[in-house]
This record gives sequence, C-alpha cells and structure tokens, in this order.
Amino acid sequence: MTTPNHPADRLLHAVRAKAAPVCVGIDPVWETLPPTLQATASPATASSISVAITSFGLGILEAVAAHVPCVKVQSACYERYGAPGVFALQRTIASAKQLGLEVILDAKRGDVGHTAAHYATAVFGELDAQLDTADWITLNGYLGADAIEPFLRPGRGAFVLVRTSNPGGDAVQSACMQSGLTVAEHVAGMVADLGDSVLGECGYSAVGAVVGATKAKDMAALRARMPRQIFLVPGIGAQGGTPDDVKPCFDDEGAGVLLTASRSIINAWQQHPDRDWPGVVSDAAARLADETGQLAGWR
Amino acid sequence: MTTPNHPADRLLHAVRAKAAPVCVGIDPVWETLPPTLQATASPATASSISVAITSFGLGILEAVAAHVPCVKVQSACYERYGAPGVFALQRTIASAKQLGLEVILDAKRGDVGHTAAHYATAVFGELDAQLDTADWITLNGYLGADAIEPFLRPGRGAFVLVRTSNPGGDAVQSACMQSGLTVAEHVAGMVADLGDSVLGECGYSAVGAVVGATKAKDMAALRARMPRQIFLVPGIGAQGGTPDDVKPCFDDEGAGVLLTASRSIINAWQQHPDRDWPGVVSDAAARLADETGQLAGWR
Repeated sequence: MTTPNHPADRLLHAVRAKAAPVCVGIDPVWETLPPTLQATASPATASSISVAITSFGLGILEAVAAHVPCVKVQSACYERYGAPGVFALQRTIASAKQLGLEVILDAKRGDVGHTAAHYATAVFGELDAQLDTADWITLNGYLGADAIEPFLRPGRGAFVLVRTSNPGGDAVQSACMQSGLTVAEHVAGMVADLGDSVLGECGYSAVGAVVGATKAKDMAALRARMPRQIFLVPGIGAQGGTPDDVKPCFDDEGAGVLLTASRSIINAWQQHPDRDWPGVVSDAAARLADETGQLAGWR
Repeated sequence: MTTPNHPADRLLHAVRAKAAPVCVGIDPVWETLPPTLQATASPATASSISVAITSFGLGILEAVAAHVPCVKVQSACYERYGAPGVFALQRTIASAKQLGLEVILDAKRGDVGHTAAHYATAVFGELDAQLDTADWITLNGYLGADAIEPFLRPGRGAFVLVRTSNPGGDAVQSACMQSGLTVAEHVAGMVADLGDSVLGECGYSAVGAVVGATKAKDMAALRARMPRQIFLVPGIGAQGGTPDDVKPCFDDEGAGVLLTASRSIINAWQQHPDRDWPGVVSDAAARLADETGQLAGWR
C-alpha cells in the first residue's frame, strides 16, 4: 500500500500504524541539554549551541521514532540562535522525515497574501523542490482565511490555533459573542468552513485545530463545531490537562486527535542521571505511546 | 539631548525630527529586484538570492534614511531563504540601526511563555548583548497578554495586530461581541490595558497597535479605546486606504500614528527604468515624507 498524500490521511495512517495518537514535541533549550551535549558547545556561541541542539534533536528522533508517528518541532527554540539555528531546524526536520516521521513545524505564523506565501515557502520549500520539509505547520487564524490558504499546498496541512492552553488565552478566546458563541467557537466555525474544501479520504481535513487540553470544558463544544478537524492537543501532563479531559474528542474509531508531549519526554533523562539519556527518552516515548494508544482504545 | 530609551519616546522623537510619521516597508522579493541586482544572483540559490536581497535592502536604507525615521522589515521575505536569509535579515537590521533608523521587525509572532521568550531573544538578542537588533516587533494578540509580555524588554516595543488591512480579517475581527464591541475592539481593550504599564514620557505606550487604513470606519472607535497606543497603519495607497481615512487617528500635536508604505517606495524604480534605482527610491521617499508630514500638520 502506498502512503497517502493527503496530509490528514497520511497522518492518521501513521498514527494508526504506531497505535499511538501522539507526537513528541522537540523544544531544545540549551540550558537544559544533557550535560554531555551541553559540554560540546564551548565556548557557547549561536553556532556551537546550534550544533549541540541539532545533536540533541537527532538523538531524540532516533529514540522516539520506533514508538510515535509524529514529532512537533518548535521553531522558536531554533530561531533564537539566528541563521545557524535555522540551519539546525532544517536539518532536524529533514532527519525526522528520513526516519519516516510525520513532522509538524510549530511556528504559529499568521500573515496575509504575499507574505503568507513567503512563509509557506520558508516552511514547505519551493513548490518544485524535493526537499524534506515539514508536513504541517501551526498557524494563527486571527487574520482570517487568506492567512491560511497559502499553506494548503498538495500534501501539506495546517493546524490553526483555536483554543490555546495558556492562561492568557481566555482574555480573547473565552469572550462571548452576540451569537452566544465564544470567540474560540467563532474561529472554530471559520476553520471548519475553510477545512471542508480540503478533506481527505479519512473524512478529516488538511486544516486541523489546536485545542488545549487545559480547556477541557470547551473541548466538546469545539468538537461539535469542528467534526472534520484533527485536534492537535497540547497541555496534557505538566500544564494540567488529563487524558480523561481529551477522551470525548476522539471519534468512534479512536481517530481525530493528536496529543502532544514535550518536556515530559525530551527531559525524561533528568530523572535518571545514572543512565544514558537516549535510552531513558526512548522508554518514556514507549510509555507515552502505550498510554495514548489505550486512550484511543487501540491497546 | 540624549536619545530617549523608552521605545515610544524614541520613535516619536525620530518621527518628529524628520517631520514624517511614516516608515518604509522593506519586503524584498527576488522576482521583482532591479535587473542589475537580480543578475548578481546567478545561479539563483538561497545563498545568492540572500546576498542580492541584502544589497537591495542596504540600497533602500541608504536611499530613504535622510527622509524617513523608521523602516519596517518583513521577516517572511528573508525567512523564505532559510539560514542565509536570516543572516541577510540580521545584517539589514544592523545596517538600518547604524544609519540611525528606528526598526520594526514585521514578524507577527504569537506564542506563549517559554516560547515567546525564545522568540524575543531571536528578535531582540540576548539581554546582555550589544547587538544592533530591531526596536519593535509586530505580534498577534490572539493568545493574550502572556504572548506579548516577554517582548516588553527595556527599550523595546511591540505593535499588536488589532485590525488588519486584508479582506479576510473581517471574518474574525469584525464579528460582534455580546458587549456590542467587535472582536477587534475587544482585543483593543486588552492591548490598552496591557500598554498602560509601559507608558513613555510622551504619553504613548511601548505596546502599540496595528490598525489597517482599509478599515477606515473602525479607526475612530479603535482610537477611542486605545488613546495611548501608537497606531502602525498599513494599507495606504496600493491597498486602497486614503490619507483622509487616517487623519482622525493623529493627536492634536500630529503624533500617535506611523503610516507604512512598502511597494510604492521600494519598487518606485519600476516607473523609471531609465534612471538609477536608488535615486528614484530616494525621491519617492522624499515625497512620502512630505505627504505624510503634511497629513500630521508638520509641513
């Protein structure tokens, strides 16, 4: 069977193959790298740190690739080191693709027209190139559909921020509209409408939604308004969301949700300073796959 | 007199010194570079194009620096060329600072907590570094105050998207709240509240607002809700906004507004293929300064 080319078909195919509806977030932070890697960047410059976070990222990818279908790479952690950081980001994404992982670039871009097209090229490469670039990007929907459409290239998808997991998100997203909806639910309607034009065979769209697990009371209403969006769900664990909060978002076949876990996996080695860090990370990813696979009813 | 360090004081000081409430947008696009510059990138690669757009940007800066107080550099146009593009961006911003210009990085970032701090470092540099980096950044406020606060470093400011100039922005920003406000007006209230803690001696805040000139009917209401925000106003000219639409946003002293003009300046040479392009751009910037200075009542 060939790999499907619609991004939602491909992602759900990968998720099902690993029986793990989860992605590992790669957010490398120089100050919290394993000591052996941190020591390789001396003196600590943008270039030497970029090499160190590349090594860390590649180690994470190799440790988790057997267990999870997807990784979410945090653009900011690389951008902070300027040009060498961006090179490290591209290298990390290409390596993830070579390992057969689906890749989400968490960049939360949001701009219009020409500018959105420039960002789309930055993220997904030139249309005629065969580079290994990300499969999905996260986007901000405040500017409307024309900030999202340039990213909907063949084979690529976008997760639009609908309900974020941070405390400050309430100030805008929970505000009540004249229609009785919250702003987040209003944005959800826009996302659903836009997504209907790019459905995959699986029934899900190339336009997904970011819905934080910390906003459990909102999740059911958002699912009702966005039945064809894959939910990218941060906030489980460290941020306070629980698996039970997320359960109602899965469809009858256990699909439609991609949980994210970052620090609990990539920093798992901190709990076991006596062991080699990639082994600890691999074990943590295996447990994560098991727990989330059970949540979907697949294990 | 020393240059003020509060970003609003510094920006308004620079605007008044040039008697021109306007910034030139630097959005270099390889396909529309002056032919002599385009020819320098052969074969056209990310690296060779990055060198060409750097040359173009530096030529623009030198052509406009005598006439306008500020430039707005479009991050996407550089990011699309990957690591060499980011290096070109940094070089362009540093050159603008050396020419005494205020610099806005138009990046429309929007993320939370740790991640926003990484972006702030990417944009403004390490806190203890003496690099010439941007003075202001554009941000998306959909994630609330904690997506903005990490950027409010000493001497730096942020323009938060309130009302964007694109057609698609209406779907979210014009939607009506239970309070009778639009979503944009609701966001404006958040921006005003946040900005009150970082006022300069001029009475304006380090938190400004992006308000598109194409949304003229909304501008007065937004000014009423955001009396202490400098308005960064795109959309004059090519996008259909007129100077008269903007006039009510200026305060009694002609301050509080920074118009932006991009393609009408940086591509002005296309109308005069017989002349050297920097001379044409310089003339266009001089006219722009004159027109906007009159609008503010300073010329």
